[in-house]
Amino acid sequence: MSAATTVRLLVICRDRPGIVSAVSGFLADRFANIVDAEQHSTGDRFFLRVEATLADDDPERLRADFAAVAAAFDMEWRLALPDADKPVAILVSRYEHCLVDLLWRFEQGELEGRAALVVSNHPDLASRAESLGIPFRHIPVTRATKPDAERELLDALREADAQLVVLARYMQILSGPFLSALGVPVLNIHHSFLPAFAGSGPYQQAIERGVKVIGATAHYVTEELDDGPIVEQDVARVTHRETVDDLLRIGRDVERVVLARAVRWHLEDRVLVDAGRTVVFH
Amino acid sequence: MSAATTVRLLVICRDRPGIVSAVSGFLADRFANIVDAEQHSTGDRFFLRVEATLADDDPERLRADFAAVAAAFDMEWRLALPDADKPVAILVSRYEHCLVDLLWRFEQGELEGRAALVVSNHPDLASRAESLGIPFRHIPVTRATKPDAERELLDALREADAQLVVLARYMQILSGPFLSALGVPVLNIHHSFLPAFAGSGPYQQAIERGVKVIGATAHYVTEELDDGPIVEQDVARVTHRETVDDLLRIGRDVERVVLARAVRWHLEDRVLVDAGRTVVFH
Amino acid sequence: MSAATTVRLLVICRDRPGIVSAVSGFLADRFANIVDAEQHSTGDRFFLRVEATLADDDPERLRADFAAVAAAFDMEWRLALPDADKPVAILVSRYEHCLVDLLWRFEQGELEGRAALVVSNHPDLASRAESLGIPFRHIPVTRATKPDAERELLDALREADAQLVVLARYMQILSGPFLSALGVPVLNIHHSFLPAFAGSGPYQQAIERGVKVIGATAHYVTEELDDGPIVEQDVARVTHRETVDDLLRIGRDVERVVLARAVRWHLEDRVLVDAGRTVVFH
Amino acid sequence: MSAATTVRLLVICRDRPGIVSAVSGFLADRFANIVDAEQHSTGDRFFLRVEATLADDDPERLRADFAAVAAAFDMEWRLALPDADKPVAILVSRYEHCLVDLLWRFEQGELEGRAALVVSNHPDLASRAESLGIPFRHIPVTRATKPDAERELLDALREADAQLVVLARYMQILSGPFLSALGVPVLNIHHSFLPAFAGSGPYQQAIERGVKVIGATAHYVTEELDDGPIVEQDVARVTHRETVDDLLRIGRDVERVVLARAVRWHLEDRVLVDAGRTVVFH
Repeated sequence: MSAATTVRLLVICRDRPGIVSAVSGFLADRFANIVDAEQHSTGDRFFLRVEATLADDDPERLRADFAAVAAAFDMEWRLALPDADKPVAILVSRYEHCLVDLLWRFEQGELEGRAALVVSNHPDLASRAESLGIPFRHIPVTRATKPDAERELLDALREADAQLVVLARYMQILSGPFLSALGVPVLNIHHSFLPAFAGSGPYQQAIERGVKVIGATAHYVTEELDDGPIVEQDVARVTHRETVDDLLRIGRDVERVVLARAVRWHLEDRVLVDAGRTVVFH
Repeated sequence: MSAATTVRLLVICRDRPGIVSAVSGFLADRFANIVDAEQHSTGDRFFLRVEATLADDDPERLRADFAAVAAAFDMEWRLALPDADKPVAILVSRYEHCLVDLLWRFEQGELEGRAALVVSNHPDLASRAESLGIPFRHIPVTRATKPDAERELLDALREADAQLVVLARYMQILSGPFLSALGVPVLNIHHSFLPAFAGSGPYQQAIERGVKVIGATAHYVTEELDDGPIVEQDVARVTHRETVDDLLRIGRDVERVVLARAVRWHLEDRVLVDAGRTVVFH
Repeated sequence: MSAATTVRLLVICRDRPGIVSAVSGFLADRFANIVDAEQHSTGDRFFLRVEATLADDDPERLRADFAAVAAAFDMEWRLALPDADKPVAILVSRYEHCLVDLLWRFEQGELEGRAALVVSNHPDLASRAESLGIPFRHIPVTRATKPDAERELLDALREADAQLVVLARYMQILSGPFLSALGVPVLNIHHSFLPAFAGSGPYQQAIERGVKVIGATAHYVTEELDDGPIVEQDVARVTHRETVDDLLRIGRDVERVVLARAVRWHLEDRVLVDAGRTVVFH
Repeated sequence: MSAATTVRLLVICRDRPGIVSAVSGFLADRFANIVDAEQHSTGDRFFLRVEATLADDDPERLRADFAAVAAAFDMEWRLALPDADKPVAILVSRYEHCLVDLLWRFEQGELEGRAALVVSNHPDLASRAESLGIPFRHIPVTRATKPDAERELLDALREADAQLVVLARYMQILSGPFLSALGVPVLNIHHSFLPAFAGSGPYQQAIERGVKVIGATAHYVTEELDDGPIVEQDVARVTHRETVDDLLRIGRDVERVVLARAVRWHLEDRVLVDAGRTVVFH
C-alpha cells in the first residue's frame, strides 16, 4: 500500500464517559494525520466519523486492533476506504432529470464512485446511459411479472457489484424480500417534503392543499414506503400562480440537487443511520 | 370624504372571456388612480385585487354600481376600505414570542390596524399587553368550562369589535359553533410545515422523524384542526445536532415572521380564499 | 392566423392618473381573453405586461391602433409574439455546467425558443452541442485577434438570426462597439452575488473575505463590466469548511438555475428594463 | 468547584501531523466527558473547540498543564468557562429592532450572559432598557465631542465590566484608539450583505442597483469600516415591488436574527478568528 492510505472510521454506540478518551488514545498512535473528525452525542447515543491517513498503512491491522476497543464499548462500527471506482447502480423510470444530473456529476468527478449500471422499467432512457458508455438494462415490471423482474434486477445489480443503488425517480416499489436479498443501501428521491405528501402525486397533493413551499426528500429505502431514514431535504417557495406543471419544473431543480447531495454524502461515508434517523457529517 | 379615498376591490368568480374587459371598462371611469392591480386565473377561477383612489370619492356609490357587474358574472366580491384603526384581537397561551412580536409590529406601524385586546387562558402574559395599554382578559378553559369560556370569549371579542382574531400560539381548539357565531376571520400559527406534523408536539415529531428542515404555517382556522387555508409558510434548515430545545428556539424565529406576514397581508386585504386555498397578492 | 393568436403587450412610461383607464378601455374590446396581466408603479414610473388572446387575430392592427394610445402617454412599448422557435445563441468558454443545463432545458421544452448556435473561444465543448445537432463554432480570441474575432462572432450570430445571446460562463469581455452592432439582448451569468465580488475570481475573493453566503447573478450585459441590469440572483450558505473547490461546486448549482430562470423569463417577455434596473413579472 | 465544571478549550495553530494525537492524548485523561468536539483544518491552519466536563474539576490546573502542549505546537489558545452572568453591553442609536430583540432573548435565556448596560448617542430608547431594569446611558456624540464621548463610553463599559460590546445599529464609528483601549470584542450588525453596499444607506444603494436579494452581516469591528471578520450573514429575496421602506422592514427581520445568532455563538465561545476570517463551530 502507498504511503498515504486514507481510512474513514465510523462509530455508533451508547454514549458514556470515557468513550472519547478511549478512542482518542487508541487513534493517537495509529493515525499519521487526521484529515477530518466529527462527533455527535445526543446524550444517549454517540456518533463518530474520523477521516485520517494511517501511520503504518495497514487498514487490516487497524481493523483488527480496533475490534477490541469496539467490543469494550459495544460499538456498531466500520472502517471504510475511499474508492473512486465504487460501482453505483441507478434505477429510473421515465423522468430523466435526476438520472441525467447524476450521470453528469459522476462524469465531472463530483461524486466518489462510478455509474456502473442504469436499469429502467421502460426502454426510453437507454441512450442517456449508453451514449456515456454505461450499461443500460431494460427490466419491465407488471404486477404479474414483479417477482421475476425483481429476481432479474437482483442478478443485474449483483453482476455489476453495485455498492449503492439510487432510485432516481424509479416508480416501482421494491419488496421487502428484494431489499433483504440485495443487502446494499438504497437511496430514493421522493418529490415532496416528507412526511408531507407521501405516496403518489405529491405535486398534485401540494396544489390541492395550497402549500406555499414545496420540497424534495432523499431517504434510504426501507420496507415501509416513504418512511426510511431521511438523508437530505430542501425546499422552494411557490405561490398560487404555480400550476402542477410549474411545480413539476421547479421540483425537478430541487429533486436533482437534493438527491445529488445525498448520494455524495453517502459515497463519502458521511451518513450514519441509527434508530431510523441519520447523522450526516458534512 | 376627502379627495384621496382609497378602496380595495376584491373579486372571485368563474373565469370566462370578457370578464376583464367588463371590469376594466367599469373601473376606467370611476378610478382616479390605480395604485396596485393584480389578477390571477387558474383557467377555471378568476381572482382580482385592485387598490385605487376614487374619482368621485364615494365608495357607497361604487359599491352600488359594481353590484350590477358582479351579478352579471356571478362574482363573490367585496369593497374594502383601509383602516389603520381596525381592531385586532390576539389570543395566546403561555409562549409569548408571537404575541410580543405582533404587539411590537403594531406599535411600529408595520401592521394596518391596532391590537385592541389580548385574551389568554393563562394569566402569565397580562403585563405584556397591559404595559402597552392594551386590555388583557384572562379566560381560563377546562374541559368542563369550555362552553362557558367560549361564550365569555365571544362576548369579549364582540365588545372589542375585533375584525380579525389571531391565535398567537393559543393552545385551545375553538369549536365550530364558536367560529360560526364569531363570524370574523381567525388566523392561527402552527409550528410545523403543514400538512406535516399536524396536531400536538410537532417539534418532537420532527425530531423523531429526523427531518432536515422545519417550518411554520399560518392558516385560517376552520372547524377541522390544522386544515384551514394556508396563508404563509416558511422553513429553517436543521441537522442532527439540534435538540428539541433548539428546534423550539429556531422555530420561534420562523413562527413569528410567518405569522406577522400573514397578519399583514390579511389586514391589507391581500388574501382571497377559494375552495380551501388562498390567493395572496403580495 | 389561427383563432388563438396570443400576444404580449409590454409598456413602460411615466406614471400619471388615467393611464390604466386609457389602456384598459383600449384593450377591453380587442382582447378575447386576458391570460395574465401585471402592472407595477414606482409612483414615478409605470410598467405593464398583458398576455392575451386577440379578438380579431390581427396583431398588426392592434399594433397600429395602440400606437395612438402610446403616443398620448409617451410610452416605451412593444407587442411581442410568443415564438417556440426563437433562435438563441449560447457563448461559452471551458466551464460546461451552464451550457449543458441550458441545452437540456431547451430540449425538455422548459425554455421558449431553441438553441440555434453555440460559440466558444475554445474547441473543448464542441461535442456538447453537436451531439444534440446544434451548430458549434470555435472562434478563438487573443488580445491581438479580438477585433477580428468579434467580427466573426457578429457574423455568426447574425447568420443564426440570434434574438438572444446567452453568456454561459464566457470568459471574454464583449466590446461596446460589438454590443451596439449586435443589437439584441445579451444575458450573462456572473458567479457572485453582485455587486459583491465583481471582476475575476469571485469564489477566491469570497474565501478571502470569509463570507457565509455565496451567490450568482444573471444580468444584461452593458459596456460597463458586471454592471448591467440584474435579472435574477440567488444564494447558497457556506461555512469555513468549504474550500475554493467546494465553492466552485456549490456555485455551479446556483449559477445554472439562476441563469436558466433569467433566460426563461426573458424569452417569455417577462423582463422590462428601465434606468438600469429590471421589473420581472414572474 | 462542583463536580460538573464545564470548560471550553479553543485552539488555533499551524496544522501539522501529530497535533490531534498530542491534544487527544493530553485530554483523554483529564476530561470526564466530552460534550462537544469539533475541529477544522484548512491544510495550513488547524482549529479546535472542545467542550467538556473536567475529571478533576480544576480548570486552573488544566490551564497550567495544557500550556506545555500549546508551546510545543505554537498554539494560540484559551480555556473559556461558560458564564450565564457574563456582562454584555449594547450600543444603539435610534433604530430599536435589534436592541428590543436582543433584550428579549437575554430575558428568555436564549443568550449566555446578561444585558448589563445599554448606551446610546440619543435619549430615545432609554425606556426600552430601563423598563427591564437595565442601566441606560445617554452619551451624545458630535464631531467636536467625539474624543470626550469615547472616553466617557470607555469608562461606562469598563465600569459595567462588559466582556462583549454589541453595536445594535449604533450609527457612530468607533476610533482605532478606542477599540485598542477597550480590549474586548465588538460585534456589529451591518444592514447589507457585505462586501456589497458597505458604508451608509445600503438599502438605498440596493434599490439603485436593482438587486433581487438583500442581506445583513454580523461582523467583528476593526479599525477599517465594515471590513472586520464576518460571523454570520443571511438574506431575503426582494423584487422590483419593494420600496426603500419595504426593504427597511424586511431588513429589520433579517438583521435581528443575524445579529442574535452571532451574539449567541460568540457568547458560547463558538467563534475563532484567524487572519481576518472566522471559524464558527455551531
